[in-house]
Amino acid sequence: MRYGIAVFPSKKVQDVANSYRKRYDPHYALIPPHITVKEPFEAEESEIEEKIIPELKEIAKNTEPFSYGIYKVSSFSPVTNTIYLKVEPSEEIFNLNEQLHTGSLPDKKDFKFVPHITIAQKLSDDEFFDVYGSLSMNKFDIQDNVGRFQLLYQLENGAWSVYETFRLGEG
Amino acid sequence: MRYGIAVFPSKKVQDVANSYRKRYDPHYALIPPHITVKEPFEAEESEIEEKIIPELKEIAKNTEPFSYGIYKVSSFSPVTNTIYLKVEPSEEIFNLNEQLHTGSLPDKKDFKFVPHITIAQKLSDDEFFDVYGSLSMNKFDIQDNVGRFQLLYQLENGAWSVYETFRLGEG
Repeated sequence: MRYGIAVFPSKKVQDVANSYRKRYDPHYALIPPHITVKEPFEAEESEIEEKIIPELKEIAKNTEPFSYGIYKVSSFSPVTNTIYLKVEPSEEIFNLNEQLHTGSLPDKKDFKFVPHITIAQKLSDDEFFDVYGSLSMNKFDIQDNVGRFQLLYQLENGAWSVYETFRLGEG
Repeated sequence: MRYGIAVFPSKKVQDVANSYRKRYDPHYALIPPHITVKEPFEAEESEIEEKIIPELKEIAKNTEPFSYGIYKVSSFSPVTNTIYLKVEPSEEIFNLNEQLHTGSLPDKKDFKFVPHITIAQKLSDDEFFDVYGSLSMNKFDIQDNVGRFQLLYQLENGAWSVYETFRLGEG
């Protein structure tokens, strides 16, 4: 099965992100707004139960809840026409991402970790320039907390279903 | 905020349900296939954190994982044109539903508890008779396990986001 690990922002941030995703993100219906903290990986359910979940519990226990800021949108252009709410980099979120690539957890990283909440993707070049031109003028002043991360698995239709929640700072 | 409690079936059952939901359920994009074990209720986040989550943990700890069967589709007609995979009633699932209406948890029940996984809803009468006529001929022979339930909250767009997972039989 295909698994991934994400942080879901608070409702207020998810509602802001969805106001854009509704129009600009074809993945709108597949998963709520999220910060991917570990890229999708393949694993057997037995491996998830026996090795990965115990390690995720340990990582959660040893990670204190933390906060992050969102102040602007940014984009992965010219690599892809993805536009996102930029999660202000912090030691805590990089540390969480690092931890999630240790032990039995697959350590493959296709990209440098750029914490973000996607709000638009798969736009044509023309759409991208229009939308990004307008969104990049927006200033945000959002503070949000990360108190947990979630292990998800992907269904045949591409949607993601939550398998388990891990609370930071709890055993 | 609006909260609800659901059990998500295993991937194989979710994939079966989605093969129908895709065509017949306008809520397809708002939540993966699920068994609602507690109807949506309003609560403050502080109440959720301080009272409801501790009680849900206790209920989960005192409930052993259990299995259930799905053998056919059924419907809520003539009350609504909803068609569902019928979750074979069992003491365990009724007990879980009962427990989720005790203590600080809102005890309001608008409907008798009928465990089910919705696969079609909001059909016109004509569609309903067509679709139900065809689906009700199907026989299923599915066994699935319940090892956890999830507390969800609803976003402004109507979609549901998982707040926390509770593993049955664990403290």
